Amino acid sequence: MTPSIFPRDLSVEPVRIGVVGLGYWGPNLIRNLNELEGADLRWICDLDQSRLDMFGRRYPTVRATREFDDLLLDPELDAIAIATPVSTHYPLGLAALEAGKHVFIEKPLASSVAEAQQLQSVAARSGLTLMPGHTFLYSPPVNTIRDLIHAGELGDVYFISTSRVNLGLHQPDVSVVWDLGPHDFSILCYWLEQTPTHLSAVSRSCIFPTIPDVAFMNLEYEHGAIAHVELSWLAPSKLRRTTVVGSQKMVVYDDTSNEPVRIFDSGVMLDDPQSFGEFRLSYRTGEIVSPAVKPAEPLQLEMADFCQAVRTSTVPRSSCDLGVEVVRMVEAVDVSLNSRGARVPLSETSRAV
Amino acid sequence: MTPSIFPRDLSVEPVRIGVVGLGYWGPNLIRNLNELEGADLRWICDLDQSRLDMFGRRYPTVRATREFDDLLLDPELDAIAIATPVSTHYPLGLAALEAGKHVFIEKPLASSVAEAQQLQSVAARSGLTLMPGHTFLYSPPVNTIRDLIHAGELGDVYFISTSRVNLGLHQPDVSVVWDLGPHDFSILCYWLEQTPTHLSAVSRSCIFPTIPDVAFMNLEYEHGAIAHVELSWLAPSKLRRTTVVGSQKMVVYDDTSNEPVRIFDSGVMLDDPQSFGEFRLSYRTGEIVSPAVKPAEPLQLEMADFCQAVRTSTVPRSSCDLGVEVVRMVEAVDVSLNSRGARVPLSETSRAV
Amino acid sequence: MTPSIFPRDLSVEPVRIGVVGLGYWGPNLIRNLNELEGADLRWICDLDQSRLDMFGRRYPTVRATREFDDLLLDPELDAIAIATPVSTHYPLGLAALEAGKHVFIEKPLASSVAEAQQLQSVAARSGLTLMPGHTFLYSPPVNTIRDLIHAGELGDVYFISTSRVNLGLHQPDVSVVWDLGPHDFSILCYWLEQTPTHLSAVSRSCIFPTIPDVAFMNLEYEHGAIAHVELSWLAPSKLRRTTVVGSQKMVVYDDTSNEPVRIFDSGVMLDDPQSFGEFRLSYRTGEIVSPAVKPAEPLQLEMADFCQAVRTSTVPRSSCDLGVEVVRMVEAVDVSLNSRGARVPLSETSRAV
Amino acid sequence: MTPSIFPRDLSVEPVRIGVVGLGYWGPNLIRNLNELEGADLRWICDLDQSRLDMFGRRYPTVRATREFDDLLLDPELDAIAIATPVSTHYPLGLAALEAGKHVFIEKPLASSVAEAQQLQSVAARSGLTLMPGHTFLYSPPVNTIRDLIHAGELGDVYFISTSRVNLGLHQPDVSVVWDLGPHDFSILCYWLEQTPTHLSAVSRSCIFPTIPDVAFMNLEYEHGAIAHVELSWLAPSKLRRTTVVGSQKMVVYDDTSNEPVRIFDSGVMLDDPQSFGEFRLSYRTGEIVSPAVKPAEPLQLEMADFCQAVRTSTVPRSSCDLGVEVVRMVEAVDVSLNSRGARVPLSETSRAV
Repeated sequence: MTPSIFPRDLSVEPVRIGVVGLGYWGPNLIRNLNELEGADLRWICDLDQSRLDMFGRRYPTVRATREFDDLLLDPELDAIAIATPVSTHYPLGLAALEAGKHVFIEKPLASSVAEAQQLQSVAARSGLTLMPGHTFLYSPPVNTIRDLIHAGELGDVYFISTSRVNLGLHQPDVSVVWDLGPHDFSILCYWLEQTPTHLSAVSRSCIFPTIPDVAFMNLEYEHGAIAHVELSWLAPSKLRRTTVVGSQKMVVYDDTSNEPVRIFDSGVMLDDPQSFGEFRLSYRTGEIVSPAVKPAEPLQLEMADFCQAVRTSTVPRSSCDLGVEVVRMVEAVDVSLNSRGARVPLSETSRAV
Repeated sequence: MTPSIFPRDLSVEPVRIGVVGLGYWGPNLIRNLNELEGADLRWICDLDQSRLDMFGRRYPTVRATREFDDLLLDPELDAIAIATPVSTHYPLGLAALEAGKHVFIEKPLASSVAEAQQLQSVAARSGLTLMPGHTFLYSPPVNTIRDLIHAGELGDVYFISTSRVNLGLHQPDVSVVWDLGPHDFSILCYWLEQTPTHLSAVSRSCIFPTIPDVAFMNLEYEHGAIAHVELSWLAPSKLRRTTVVGSQKMVVYDDTSNEPVRIFDSGVMLDDPQSFGEFRLSYRTGEIVSPAVKPAEPLQLEMADFCQAVRTSTVPRSSCDLGVEVVRMVEAVDVSLNSRGARVPLSETSRAV
Repeated sequence: MTPSIFPRDLSVEPVRIGVVGLGYWGPNLIRNLNELEGADLRWICDLDQSRLDMFGRRYPTVRATREFDDLLLDPELDAIAIATPVSTHYPLGLAALEAGKHVFIEKPLASSVAEAQQLQSVAARSGLTLMPGHTFLYSPPVNTIRDLIHAGELGDVYFISTSRVNLGLHQPDVSVVWDLGPHDFSILCYWLEQTPTHLSAVSRSCIFPTIPDVAFMNLEYEHGAIAHVELSWLAPSKLRRTTVVGSQKMVVYDDTSNEPVRIFDSGVMLDDPQSFGEFRLSYRTGEIVSPAVKPAEPLQLEMADFCQAVRTSTVPRSSCDLGVEVVRMVEAVDVSLNSRGARVPLSETSRAV
Repeated sequence: MTPSIFPRDLSVEPVRIGVVGLGYWGPNLIRNLNELEGADLRWICDLDQSRLDMFGRRYPTVRATREFDDLLLDPELDAIAIATPVSTHYPLGLAALEAGKHVFIEKPLASSVAEAQQLQSVAARSGLTLMPGHTFLYSPPVNTIRDLIHAGELGDVYFISTSRVNLGLHQPDVSVVWDLGPHDFSILCYWLEQTPTHLSAVSRSCIFPTIPDVAFMNLEYEHGAIAHVELSWLAPSKLRRTTVVGSQKMVVYDDTSNEPVRIFDSGVMLDDPQSFGEFRLSYRTGEIVSPAVKPAEPLQLEMADFCQAVRTSTVPRSSCDLGVEVVRMVEAVDVSLNSRGARVPLSETSRAV
């Protein structure tokens, strides 16, 4: 397949884009791309004709097709956004890159590190943008907390504990770790700027015999930080609660609350460490602040970042590197689960992202 | 040392008891024993004369001493309650048993399984009551949930997730696992009536280099149930939250709430499993009930149970067997922590408690 | 104006309807009518051409006009839904009724009792449906509580206290009482099936000198029940909280919660009233139940009820009688405010609705 | 009766004090006075010998008597604290003042304005301290909010809305207004430094025919502020919630919460008021702060303030003037209730406190 010979001047023109996959998430991509100034939605593609018809009526100027090749062969198309089942991310992404298209792939980037790295390498060789859809990196509360961490307001991050649980929805093909894990793993990568060195996991497949629907994961980082991640499709009520405990301050991030970020000016200090090694601590409990977090639709910001990355050949916030690391973490969880919860090293050396 | 030659008729007389250790918890024992009809508080004992003086003034009819032997040698004394640091549980408990006294020991029973079993065997040989102080077994919400589980109302228990965190208080000699872990481990034993077959743990020593003050533990049970336990002395706010997910119903136990037990009539069902293996689930979200939980001071009930056990030579709810299993779990956590989070078997065979 | 000479058989055909007013609420009516099987949306009407254009594009098969007369003169049109500013409810509603159209008018029905009764009388004379848009009468939690009251589960209703406050939005032409009051007043009418005999009110115009943006109202009912209503456009956070205290049980209705209805099995009883008038009470605090409230869009049910009422010439749940009583209450609040908070009788006799 | 001829130098000696009334609240006074350095508890007095015996055992060095005269005639006694039923406040307080004793009286100061003013005038004439027990004036959250108001942080106080409700306890002799009202009325006086000019009230006597157990009160202040107070002994759950809405910020005070004070940096502004009277508002929703409120027992601070006032002949924070104004408000509520909720003026002129 031949990429368009005369590339357009994307710095002044909107990115021409097609969306593949009209299931649960695809329609959100379509809606946001349709409203985005920097994007020009050209194609929608799905195997299910009834979905195509439904969205074709809603977006009458967009071409609808069941043939992915139609997108690959359209010389005017700059980019393809893929929102299909995880197992198809690799073949579709690869074909799109080889057709010279910039590619956006819903999280997780691929179903193995090998696949993800292969996509990454093809994109790099071709000078094309390859961006995984880690939407939480565009969430205002997540960024408020990243800013706090990076400004040193929390001090040393001692540990992070996070729960992402609710009743359903069970996926037919992937575990709760592949479904929900990329959210927390991408947030952890974004905040801590490193992949854990080791992790271990325990899970149970409560409803289907081979699809874990609850999992507990322990992560260890290079400079001492640890993290716990709890994921479940079985829970009495929806919980999206993350606690970050630092040496100076602590933060609670609750994505279901009107006050998604709460900063606790609390901590513990060793008094007078010179005093003969005596055990003497003081606990500090200061004010609690819920900063005003500007409301914004993360997906809108994410799509804009993708188009911006395509136009300027820069690395988007949700970078391909970060997407590979997230897949590395999910894959390591599977390794741990398959070896009965063993502690698994993520690689020879931890890597910054 | 010689036990009293003519044992009194405890079925009609109150149990004569002495309390060793007037630190944080001992005064609670004293207050409750003093108010209990079935008990006759005779001695208080501590190495710190100022504590003895303070409580001596408050309970002028009780004898105060810095010599543990005074209690051992008092032929009229039936029982000794030990609320001293963990490392002294074994020697003090052993001496008391050998002096023919019934013994109550604050949780954990001892600082190793070997010690705990040694105490247990001496008590059994002498026909004396040995009871660990697992107060939560007398907490009304904990019993409400035990009743629900045992009546089958929750169905099969899929998993349990629990958090016990707050800011402080760091202990100078033991980790957060030895300090707070016995609470959750005793509750889990009481509810599930078995010890886990395996566990793994990750911790961090944030404030003192060698005293873990945050720990994440994963437990596995014989028939498939798993549990996660989070313990920390570093937290933005106090959390005492346990979720029990069953195949029929789910329960949230929040010990800091006015509604400590909430029962969710929620679940997920496989529809028509005959239908060609199709993936078809339905989610049920029914009413939520906060049962009226009768207020009661667990420690009062616990002390009464101890006196009752002494009087009737029966096994108290907080049994010695359960106390040994709790120590087994804490010890296994230490083994896992010392082998970098390895999955540790608790014994050749899981045991019911 | 002449109504269509040969009325269609509405029992088998959908109600042909036009919507006037495309401001804040009108688009919700349009969307719901468009999705409703029993309705056939024919016209949209607004003075603002840009609003007409916007919604014309979204509903290309619906005719758009700036001329209200176009609707009145369309012999095929059965009904008109009015979602314009309050001051226009009367003239537009009257013209529609006189043109032989069934009429739906957003709450409040009119800006005075006199106007509301005039509309009611014209509708009655012409055998046309006139329905005010009291959407909360179709809210599942509101109906759950009505059922509890009517089944006697709460016992005698002692009192009701309700707060409906949030920051904004100030209306340019009406007070917070005319804006938010109809919600609570319609709910109270629906639950208690009577209008209060007296009310008094205090308000303040904080932002604009003559537009009350906070008001406290006390209501008295014939058989002893009292109610308090707090309304405000100035509040630190959104509150939608109603407490109903009955002699047997108590209910809290919180429209912002995942558990909108909570039933408290609590109360107080006079013990042994025979015992020489002694003062002896016992307080009962039993279980708390959050019943499963079926999710439903109240506006969808409301529109269906209107079409059903038109088709079958029956009285809709949100009846014209109730709409008149709500206006009577709002008007009485204004009388009280204008006489410095005086206690105002609502009429010679209270009336059932 | 003759006061002690040679008054002691109270600036260096502790205040010798007796407590009358060992019912619900008196024991708290005793406990605090006993622990207070500046006080020397000399007498306890009650008609009930069994209460005297009980507390006599607990405080063996304090003299116990059933004769109030014993206190009046003790020339060494400086002050008397009265914690008896409301109807006895006046005669006991008067006798104590006439015996030359400084007097502390539990809230409310007396059962009518006339009585309260008579006590005030006797105290003033004799140069004795007369202090009502408005404990909330010593509550840290209440003072945090007073500081915010007085520093102008909230801007102009638009209105205050407060709820103080729970299940029980019904008093046999006074209404919920006399029982709970003094709390909120004293707080309002303390914050706003003025008495309302008018108030109106509605109540219901649900359990006993003549004792109101729920009441709604509307208050109006001289410079435009209004307030609503809801009091009830019948409620599904305990509520202690006060909202203060100012032109710059808003505050929620919840006395049952771990975060008793929450400051909302929210408000509404008229944009460009020059612009031809156009209706244009902007709403501001900024950060929310829970300041660290130092824990302290208000009663301890109150007793210390009383002793300090006695020693230095200064006016305590809970001043007699404020106590009279609180009685004026409660009395006005009764007037309003007795005239069917009429709006009642509190006096010719509002007065600062």
